Amino acid sequence: MLENLKAEVLEANLEIVRRGLVLYTFGNASGIDRETGLVAIKPSGVPYETMKPSDLVVTDLNGKIVEGSLRPSSDLATHLHLYREFPAIGGIVHTHSEYATAWAQAGREIPAYGTTHADYFYGPVPVTGELNDEEVATDYVLNTGVAITRRFQGLDPIAVPGVLVRGHAPFAWGRTPMDAAHHAVILESVARMAYYTVTLNASCGNISQALLDLHHFRKHGPNATYGQKNSK
Amino acid sequence: MLENLKAEVLEANLEIVRRGLVLYTFGNASGIDRETGLVAIKPSGVPYETMKPSDLVVTDLNGKIVEGSLRPSSDLATHLHLYREFPAIGGIVHTHSEYATAWAQAGREIPAYGTTHADYFYGPVPVTGELNDEEVATDYVLNTGVAITRRFQGLDPIAVPGVLVRGHAPFAWGRTPMDAAHHAVILESVARMAYYTVTLNASCGNISQALLDLHHFRKHGPNATYGQKNSK
Amino acid sequence: MLENLKAEVLEANLEIVRRGLVLYTFGNASGIDRETGLVAIKPSGVPYETMKPSDLVVTDLNGKIVEGSLRPSSDLATHLHLYREFPAIGGIVHTHSEYATAWAQAGREIPAYGTTHADYFYGPVPVTGELNDEEVATDYVLNTGVAITRRFQGLDPIAVPGVLVRGHAPFAWGRTPMDAAHHAVILESVARMAYYTVTLNASCGNISQALLDLHHFRKHGPNATYGQKNSK
Amino acid sequence: MLENLKAEVLEANLEIVRRGLVLYTFGNASGIDRETGLVAIKPSGVPYETMKPSDLVVTDLNGKIVEGSLRPSSDLATHLHLYREFPAIGGIVHTHSEYATAWAQAGREIPAYGTTHADYFYGPVPVTGELNDEEVATDYVLNTGVAITRRFQGLDPIAVPGVLVRGHAPFAWGRTPMDAAHHAVILESVARMAYYTVTLNASCGNISQALLDLHHFRKHGPNATYGQKNSK
Repeated sequence: MLENLKAEVLEANLEIVRRGLVLYTFGNASGIDRETGLVAIKPSGVPYETMKPSDLVVTDLNGKIVEGSLRPSSDLATHLHLYREFPAIGGIVHTHSEYATAWAQAGREIPAYGTTHADYFYGPVPVTGELNDEEVATDYVLNTGVAITRRFQGLDPIAVPGVLVRGHAPFAWGRTPMDAAHHAVILESVARMAYYTVTLNASCGNISQALLDLHHFRKHGPNATYGQKNSK
Repeated sequence: MLENLKAEVLEANLEIVRRGLVLYTFGNASGIDRETGLVAIKPSGVPYETMKPSDLVVTDLNGKIVEGSLRPSSDLATHLHLYREFPAIGGIVHTHSEYATAWAQAGREIPAYGTTHADYFYGPVPVTGELNDEEVATDYVLNTGVAITRRFQGLDPIAVPGVLVRGHAPFAWGRTPMDAAHHAVILESVARMAYYTVTLNASCGNISQALLDLHHFRKHGPNATYGQKNSK
Repeated sequence: MLENLKAEVLEANLEIVRRGLVLYTFGNASGIDRETGLVAIKPSGVPYETMKPSDLVVTDLNGKIVEGSLRPSSDLATHLHLYREFPAIGGIVHTHSEYATAWAQAGREIPAYGTTHADYFYGPVPVTGELNDEEVATDYVLNTGVAITRRFQGLDPIAVPGVLVRGHAPFAWGRTPMDAAHHAVILESVARMAYYTVTLNASCGNISQALLDLHHFRKHGPNATYGQKNSK
Repeated sequence: MLENLKAEVLEANLEIVRRGLVLYTFGNASGIDRETGLVAIKPSGVPYETMKPSDLVVTDLNGKIVEGSLRPSSDLATHLHLYREFPAIGGIVHTHSEYATAWAQAGREIPAYGTTHADYFYGPVPVTGELNDEEVATDYVLNTGVAITRRFQGLDPIAVPGVLVRGHAPFAWGRTPMDAAHHAVILESVARMAYYTVTLNASCGNISQALLDLHHFRKHGPNATYGQKNSK
């Protein structure tokens, strides 16, 4: 079932490996079929090198496994919460990519220091609050998702397609699994450049709202002019 | 038309990929045929892996497309302004290479900390002023070029073949498209070493004028002694 | 003799090369057969590219060579001391991987800044005390091991499978030689992310005890849920 | 003539490329035949990819070309001065490797922060003084060598096989051209780790004299125990 989705999710998983975001079996990508509400996700702890579409686990939005003989990623409950709360997204990628993780560990949001950032993230990449001991002790993985959606109150997840989970690592998402993978890759590059920027200029601020708007809206929305007419 | 120029511009585009300056479809290279005043430039948002000479877009110096079925790079107007204002240059390369971009985001020029810098840039790599909201709202891409040429008042673009656009990223140029690509690659290396240098010694100054002169003029101008007699 | 162990130790040696932890002939891996008390270790100063299982040196726990015509790694006495004092471990890896070595040189333990760390190290990665001149002058290599076990008083080497030797470099270990290699690789990644973290936020603290517990115990011990049921 | 020396010098040139110390045609390696006093050196500005032994230039110790049709490296006079003043050395390598260059640009010597350093450099890697304007204006390349030997008054170039030329970049040397290349590679690694170390702990000091002695003398001199008996 969902052969296209599984192929796409596998490809998103491989993309984060190809781009150097993954050590060993770290990280995971998933995708959702909005018609059926079914999610395909990477199995837990399986090597990327040998992963096949049939290794992916298909669950419903409550986490009930409907296909697959392997355990799903241990981050499944976070993915499912985000799919339930962010109806516009179709794919999610979680990595421990090193610069984005460092910002998450430092508990600092990534300011919009330049136009590379603005092309993909309309404003700072936010960082969640810390989970309290009870949230950690009970339903930790779900509560990680809750911390994300709590932080996104008033934010549009399509305009800001990623987040830093404090003390943990980034999640990125997009309209498709491959979009989510691209956003994870670009988030790492943006995090790396922001690291260099802030260590060169500790008081550096965000670019102007005008410049943020210009760069964002020429790549997104009805007036986008970037790329070729026939492609996305 | 202009098959040699297009081949050279394609090669300059591929050089910045080979040297690790490019993520996905970021960046662009162009070249100009000074006899006809025609410019060949990378199309917008096309993958480098499959790019062919015939994908390049040829425009005149006012941006009118004279050959090519794809949209030109969204940075075309910056390139054309630089070709109009810097008559000695024959190629331009724009990247978001990460260290040079960080200096641009930090709003700091790159001092001439050493002889590697002096071999290619006769003085600091300057950073432009910030565009005001009106310059962003109207003709933003052209105004990016205007910010560059405004900053280069009194500077020789052949002696300083690159710039940091504040809050954005570097542009580099040269007598040919491949020269421009080489300068983009070396600018990134210089930016990286300058980053390490200033974090090791926050009060580090430029090398002496004597040393800057020596290194620059042995590689450039009528008394150059570097390399072999028969090559450039 | 011990063909399986030697094959495994060779593989652990190659793993640290593949993962970029090794320059030239730096580093070494060993493994122990607990039934016989025999240790297989890399020979000293032999290129990894051409190393064969038969190049490995087999010694008893007192360092007496029982097989092999080459000199054992110059760090042998440290390995043997750790095998004698940490009965639960089956493999040891020593590298001069650059970020972990930098923390060791700086004389700073690596705090548990995030969940990547917590997944593998239950608390900070400790740093040993400095050896005094007498400990350096006599039995230096053995005393390096003594400094490690002295620092591990009250710590469980399975829960914290690595250490920074002050002014020197990291040692990592595990239940098998390959576990030790994985811990060496992950220690370097953790050290790198911790470096970025502390330079972004000098006063960053450890993650909460609750989060440390959660991440550690879901991957280790009787209640582990990570990975597939049939694998480790 | 000197076919073996030229082959070895070519190999040393290629080693610094393989190890990532070189951008484009930067850097150069040379070797000397002490019996004839002839030096083989890389030609200036020739691509490494296509370099052949016959491209190397052979000169006497005064710089007179005795074989080769290409111009020698523009750094020839520095090499020759070092060969004249340091009779124990047989090879020299100059690179602009990025971390070592950053220390040179910052005007800071590299302290002996750890045992990796001590294994190769018996004490800090020194930095030369600045050349004055007259030394730059006349015989600059020779004076670069003079600045090095002036700084090495009282130092043994075999015990400290490298230097940072202030505002420029490192030179490394050794008993053979390949030794010099290895020292250049290790100097870059040591420079990188020292950079991380000092940014983690600004007041970090050298390791103890006892530890410096131990590590140095077990790899060098009559009592060396590292490696195999039959190899160097």
